[in-house]
Amino acid sequence: MSPTAGEVLGAGARLAAEAARFAALGWMRGTSGNLSEVVSRDPLRLAVTASGLDKGELSAADLAVVGPAGDPVEVEGIAPLRPSAEAGLHARVAALTGAGAVVHVHTLSAVVAGAHWPGGVRLRDLETLKGIGRGAHDDEVLVPVIPNSQDMAELGDRFEAAYDPGVPAVIVASHGLYAWGDDLLRARHVTECVDWLLAYRIATR
Amino acid sequence: MSPTAGEVLGAGARLAAEAARFAALGWMRGTSGNLSEVVSRDPLRLAVTASGLDKGELSAADLAVVGPAGDPVEVEGIAPLRPSAEAGLHARVAALTGAGAVVHVHTLSAVVAGAHWPGGVRLRDLETLKGIGRGAHDDEVLVPVIPNSQDMAELGDRFEAAYDPGVPAVIVASHGLYAWGDDLLRARHVTECVDWLLAYRIATR
Amino acid sequence: MSPTAGEVLGAGARLAAEAARFAALGWMRGTSGNLSEVVSRDPLRLAVTASGLDKGELSAADLAVVGPAGDPVEVEGIAPLRPSAEAGLHARVAALTGAGAVVHVHTLSAVVAGAHWPGGVRLRDLETLKGIGRGAHDDEVLVPVIPNSQDMAELGDRFEAAYDPGVPAVIVASHGLYAWGDDLLRARHVTECVDWLLAYRIATR
Amino acid sequence: MSPTAGEVLGAGARLAAEAARFAALGWMRGTSGNLSEVVSRDPLRLAVTASGLDKGELSAADLAVVGPAGDPVEVEGIAPLRPSAEAGLHARVAALTGAGAVVHVHTLSAVVAGAHWPGGVRLRDLETLKGIGRGAHDDEVLVPVIPNSQDMAELGDRFEAAYDPGVPAVIVASHGLYAWGDDLLRARHVTECVDWLLAYRIATR
Repeated sequence: MSPTAGEVLGAGARLAAEAARFAALGWMRGTSGNLSEVVSRDPLRLAVTASGLDKGELSAADLAVVGPAGDPVEVEGIAPLRPSAEAGLHARVAALTGAGAVVHVHTLSAVVAGAHWPGGVRLRDLETLKGIGRGAHDDEVLVPVIPNSQDMAELGDRFEAAYDPGVPAVIVASHGLYAWGDDLLRARHVTECVDWLLAYRIATR
Repeated sequence: MSPTAGEVLGAGARLAAEAARFAALGWMRGTSGNLSEVVSRDPLRLAVTASGLDKGELSAADLAVVGPAGDPVEVEGIAPLRPSAEAGLHARVAALTGAGAVVHVHTLSAVVAGAHWPGGVRLRDLETLKGIGRGAHDDEVLVPVIPNSQDMAELGDRFEAAYDPGVPAVIVASHGLYAWGDDLLRARHVTECVDWLLAYRIATR
Repeated sequence: MSPTAGEVLGAGARLAAEAARFAALGWMRGTSGNLSEVVSRDPLRLAVTASGLDKGELSAADLAVVGPAGDPVEVEGIAPLRPSAEAGLHARVAALTGAGAVVHVHTLSAVVAGAHWPGGVRLRDLETLKGIGRGAHDDEVLVPVIPNSQDMAELGDRFEAAYDPGVPAVIVASHGLYAWGDDLLRARHVTECVDWLLAYRIATR
Repeated sequence: MSPTAGEVLGAGARLAAEAARFAALGWMRGTSGNLSEVVSRDPLRLAVTASGLDKGELSAADLAVVGPAGDPVEVEGIAPLRPSAEAGLHARVAALTGAGAVVHVHTLSAVVAGAHWPGGVRLRDLETLKGIGRGAHDDEVLVPVIPNSQDMAELGDRFEAAYDPGVPAVIVASHGLYAWGDDLLRARHVTECVDWLLAYRIATR
């Protein structure tokens, strides 16, 4: 069933609050990055933060609703806004991983790590790996790094090819980080832990 | 037509709020930096934050109104305040670039980058370049670096000589950053993206 | 005598406020870290922040009460919550050191320092050493570093073996920091000073 | 004439607000640092923040009043608090420099710079030097670095020997920064500019 306007605006309020939180951390400089929440699974519909706005100053209505290909979908009672091109990747991440929420931020640590380790960032024997669902000992994790593209189909293919079901994050080189979770709070925690892990890795290389 | 006191104070309120935001980021330490908004285009008049005050604690009236050469201009109902010497460069930036707002901040990343690359900071193949109106791929951007001067006419000439219409920012070596946009919000976003790009460049050199 | 619900919730309110403060510093990313307060000494009972929650958003009731081995203890009027496995180490720290409050945070400086100096972090001739009860001159301090483990009995044994009564903090390598004091405010100050000392040591190595 | 209780508490309110501001910057970790304001010049009396308290949580009454040697002075209506030993250096700085306010903070940049350049930190050709009253061009500034001591008379002698009337700040090696100005706001601005200059110097060495 399609989502109602109330469900969409509820998601919008959560996305706006979460975006303000990430913006305050300096992870959404300019108007960069976008957050999404799955508002219906079948058909797949995501509420995605609107493009081109300051991510620290969104309101609940500053969102677009998109379908599986990032195409705008009309919801009665919601003024249609142009989705970011990246909405297509959000939808694909949600479809492929089953995530309920996707975070895309431009953290410096992700882009610096992507430059240092274009083949993926190896992490191992760190307690904070538990924060992304992995083991703190003897469990080698490779955070995938994929080349950037403006073609969301191409970027989505790269994402799919690199995707490891055991790693809830992918670095887009020269660009930023995608991370996800069952809900927005879990996606926040994954994002924070990945950032910590990458910052640690950079500090000790 | 000349701006009214109401227009000037409206600009002052926006400049004060924006300055407090930049000050909280640590980009206007001491009483450094200044922000301006074009309040009339013909004749050219800018509202510029007042000199010598803490940029985190400005009120709407803490501004000067200046003309094309940074000279103080009287506006009925506005108590005249001494403009910063740098107001002259703000006016020149606005005249040359057509910008509606100019940001001048002392970010560490700008001055460190200016020291590393006195001939200009080369940036390329970075998604965040889109935040300053450039391409994320195969588009080489050179952020100009000009030597510092206390003579605003000289500094303005250097600015004009170095100015690239495709790059909305210039580093003044040993000093800070100038960035601009159609309005104050856009100038904020350009400033944030340039800071991110310079910090990235420094972290990966 | 066993603690009352009121005493436990009073501790919970203090722990929640303190956790929000540490979270804002970026020291409790994801749901990492935990804080505790001794609510009775004999029998030993600690109020420990609950596991799996965002440490910036705890309420007074988001805690578990544990005994000397980190085992959950019922208190009338308190809804029993599952303690973090690390509660066992908190209890052991409190028992061994006599501390009234224990802080466990994932500061980057602690984990980076643990990687650089797995045999312990040597500090000497620094005024901030007075903040952890040591001398500013001619007093060599070794902050112990112990290997990480998921077995709290094993980690506790390592803690006990490494413990120096003159140093109110231990680094768990690849994991984070434990610090303590007579009360929560003192534990905060010790944590802040140790973080400063480790950051300084890293910056000057 | 001796200061009144009202004058002292007015200073205390300003010192508490300023200390909270510096603490939020991370420059007064633990209970470190102290701020003072001259409340009478003849006889010399300073209001100094009390020792051993969290500098982010002071109230107006959390201060001591001291004379030229840092000795506690009674003021009618003010509960006498034990001054920090460092109050003696505050008084000496105020007497020697004529400053109306003195800031002592434990900034990482000051202590790192003191370790890199124990003979003094050379600064030159930087716009931010204007923020400490110096020239942006061709004006060489040496921020003095003096060895730490717990004996305030000895530290004061070192301060006096190193003092350059053209530089409103001194680094105490392995310890922190002293900076001053005509009033507390000016001392804040000097402190911020010196921190910026030292951070820049460290980043480009």
